[in-house]
Amino acid sequence: MSRFQLDDLLDLATRVKGKRPGQVLGGKTLGMLFFQPSLRTRVSFEVGMQQLGGHCINLSSDDLYDLEPNEQAVMDGPAEEHVKDAARTLSRYVDALGIRAAARTSTWERDRQELLLRSYAEHSSVPVINLETVFEHPCQALADVLTMRENLITMQGRKLTLMWCNHPEPKSLGPTHSVLQLASLMGMDVTLAHPLGFEVDDEVLQRSRAAAEEAGGAGRVVNDMQAGGKGAEVIYARSWGCTKYWDDPERESIVKRSFQDWRVDRELMALTDDAMLMHPLPVRRNVAATDEVLDGDRSRIYDQAANRAHVQKALLMQLLK
Amino acid sequence: MSRFQLDDLLDLATRVKGKRPGQVLGGKTLGMLFFQPSLRTRVSFEVGMQQLGGHCINLSSDDLYDLEPNEQAVMDGPAEEHVKDAARTLSRYVDALGIRAAARTSTWERDRQELLLRSYAEHSSVPVINLETVFEHPCQALADVLTMRENLITMQGRKLTLMWCNHPEPKSLGPTHSVLQLASLMGMDVTLAHPLGFEVDDEVLQRSRAAAEEAGGAGRVVNDMQAGGKGAEVIYARSWGCTKYWDDPERESIVKRSFQDWRVDRELMALTDDAMLMHPLPVRRNVAATDEVLDGDRSRIYDQAANRAHVQKALLMQLLK
Amino acid sequence: MSRFQLDDLLDLATRVKGKRPGQVLGGKTLGMLFFQPSLRTRVSFEVGMQQLGGHCINLSSDDLYDLEPNEQAVMDGPAEEHVKDAARTLSRYVDALGIRAAARTSTWERDRQELLLRSYAEHSSVPVINLETVFEHPCQALADVLTMRENLITMQGRKLTLMWCNHPEPKSLGPTHSVLQLASLMGMDVTLAHPLGFEVDDEVLQRSRAAAEEAGGAGRVVNDMQAGGKGAEVIYARSWGCTKYWDDPERESIVKRSFQDWRVDRELMALTDDAMLMHPLPVRRNVAATDEVLDGDRSRIYDQAANRAHVQKALLMQLLK
Repeated sequence: MSRFQLDDLLDLATRVKGKRPGQVLGGKTLGMLFFQPSLRTRVSFEVGMQQLGGHCINLSSDDLYDLEPNEQAVMDGPAEEHVKDAARTLSRYVDALGIRAAARTSTWERDRQELLLRSYAEHSSVPVINLETVFEHPCQALADVLTMRENLITMQGRKLTLMWCNHPEPKSLGPTHSVLQLASLMGMDVTLAHPLGFEVDDEVLQRSRAAAEEAGGAGRVVNDMQAGGKGAEVIYARSWGCTKYWDDPERESIVKRSFQDWRVDRELMALTDDAMLMHPLPVRRNVAATDEVLDGDRSRIYDQAANRAHVQKALLMQLLK
Repeated sequence: MSRFQLDDLLDLATRVKGKRPGQVLGGKTLGMLFFQPSLRTRVSFEVGMQQLGGHCINLSSDDLYDLEPNEQAVMDGPAEEHVKDAARTLSRYVDALGIRAAARTSTWERDRQELLLRSYAEHSSVPVINLETVFEHPCQALADVLTMRENLITMQGRKLTLMWCNHPEPKSLGPTHSVLQLASLMGMDVTLAHPLGFEVDDEVLQRSRAAAEEAGGAGRVVNDMQAGGKGAEVIYARSWGCTKYWDDPERESIVKRSFQDWRVDRELMALTDDAMLMHPLPVRRNVAATDEVLDGDRSRIYDQAANRAHVQKALLMQLLK
Repeated sequence: MSRFQLDDLLDLATRVKGKRPGQVLGGKTLGMLFFQPSLRTRVSFEVGMQQLGGHCINLSSDDLYDLEPNEQAVMDGPAEEHVKDAARTLSRYVDALGIRAAARTSTWERDRQELLLRSYAEHSSVPVINLETVFEHPCQALADVLTMRENLITMQGRKLTLMWCNHPEPKSLGPTHSVLQLASLMGMDVTLAHPLGFEVDDEVLQRSRAAAEEAGGAGRVVNDMQAGGKGAEVIYARSWGCTKYWDDPERESIVKRSFQDWRVDRELMALTDDAMLMHPLPVRRNVAATDEVLDGDRSRIYDQAANRAHVQKALLMQLLK
């Protein structure tokens, strides 16, 4: 996505948010395939399509038999249908496909390739929307950038900290990667704050840094929570996983025991430049961040969620109108 | 609900039933969260919204991760999101929320408080509709009162018997409580007939009796099936649970063994004043009531089900139009 | 279905395919009950209803409690509701009901009677659509006959081979039976090719042969793959089950070990009269047919899937408009 395309989409989202555009997608259908549970993504897309006059069909993996992702497979195992055939068939029925495939399945080197999503994209003849993988969550990041733009007005050089926080479960890197990339593209001054061992994907980091510098922003990494908070204008809290121990959640869990104080609270927020607090939800209250800051004046967590519907309506209009 | 509000809603339901009101809820969405299976409730709401030009989003608990209901919880357990955040997020997407949370989870004293429903109601900024708890099932009772009104024409002083009947499973008190209250509000002469040990909630009973007396009706309890049937103009059959052994279904089951003859049949119906037979469905045929009476001329069980859609359309129009 | 009715429906499907008929089913609802997973059937009906201005309600068996199919049952077991009551209730809400009940549950003699489907049909007061049983899959066959008609232009005397093929799982006879009957009705020259022991239902076979002869076509059975392929203008590949060992899938599986070479490949296709290749999907790639022929120029498998939506829209218009 270029800076121009991003601005264009955010502008359309702002207009769509201000005034309902009517039945512009009448008769259009979005098929959504969920391989993991979803609240915000599913409801925001379904409401969005409905308000534009269109319709969503929601297929969870429970509604389906197993699907085979490997090319040239001899399908004598449990998989009843090839992804290729499901994608080509669905392309004949719906106008766009959304795929959520955000589970850890293998090593980081393999999971970062988003094979299931890419297999649908390759075989579909209609647009395929990423509804979250372990590597990217672009719809969330679009809503987040819109939320920041509404609050900060100008973006260039503004101080955003992506703050790792504690969580009992091993998490994906999708929202972190996607926000990092889009905020960098907008020329923000982005700090990644995380404990040692929780480095994000290096390719994403390098690409983001280059984009930030080109757009008049900057990027840095700190391994200290307080350093991350200091002077920030936006704290974006979210846990993410350890790519080194990606296929060994037990070990990741042991490593995390030393980092239970990575929790956003009043003390941390006091170090910032009166920062707004963001989190993509669902949030583990009083583990990742305290009730006090999540429910405080500077919290924008529900605006982020609400903006999911607006940016996605804009995206659907660009893809389908 | 006041008598005036009830009459108003039933009048609107009658008009809606006679003539489809068109796309009056165009662009509106009702989100429904089901924590137990549903046939009538889900389909009647979905059809109703559709006929009014709106849309339902159906979220069953299987589509979702665990939700935390307790305030100030440190969320390091299995619950991935707080009810508070789910309710606030959904309030940004949908125009009303329906919640079915009708399972026994604890003691009667605790379950009668409808904590999960009330937690959604507290944190939502849109109207929340009770789709059934163990304590109340108001949408069912509204359909039932409409059905009685259509058949009896006048309601005051008419003899309704809420008849306990046998069932292999421990059941909730929702429909019984809600019909008892609305029928009392209409000034009916309501008899509760049940075996000893199956008393309804005392607060509900007292409140209903007071309402009935104020409206020119009456209330009494009998512990004999034949006494309950005698002279009734409406037999409303349904099993309900034993609040004393609420958290010990095994023991409730043993108690019920003595009451297997509490089954509505031709002999019982012969004692009545040519009563119409009602049951909120699903019904255990030949356990709660015989095929003969359920399929007989005086049965109104499918009219009750059909009226679910009509009263709910009226309710949705009052809440959302 | 008469030949006249079939032609009429296919003609309507062709017109519907050419030009969207608009909101002719505005306010109408189709309820779909799935007792087995579905991709094509569910999505094609939901998209079809949507494009006609109507709406589908999708009930999978997971959304529901157990239902009792037997008349006069004393319902003290696990079933919470009788099929009779579910059917009568749903008939008050929706304008048509679709039922998929395609599992092996008993012996062939019993399963071929389609008891669950017929119970819904008997008790519903709205049209009931067969969304696939083990005995018939008429919506698939309608799409298949439409696909053949589009490609062959004339149907009488054209050579169709229904080719059994290998599959790791025991399969139903639904698509095979339904295509056999409709193709015979169109006067095609139909060859059934299968290994000994995989005979189709004799009543279906006799009825089809009579229909074919009346319409100027023919019917024959061969137990040799090459003989089945020779001179065919259409190869319709699909596995089906052994009715003799219907309730003993283990034994069927052992029998099938000798028939693993029943796989449609380039060599088989070379024997035909440049036949088009059909399969109702899902297909086990490289077991039932090779990637090469499924992805080849003569494959029509995605056109068959796409035509599901078109014939079903025509059917819904005939039933509901």
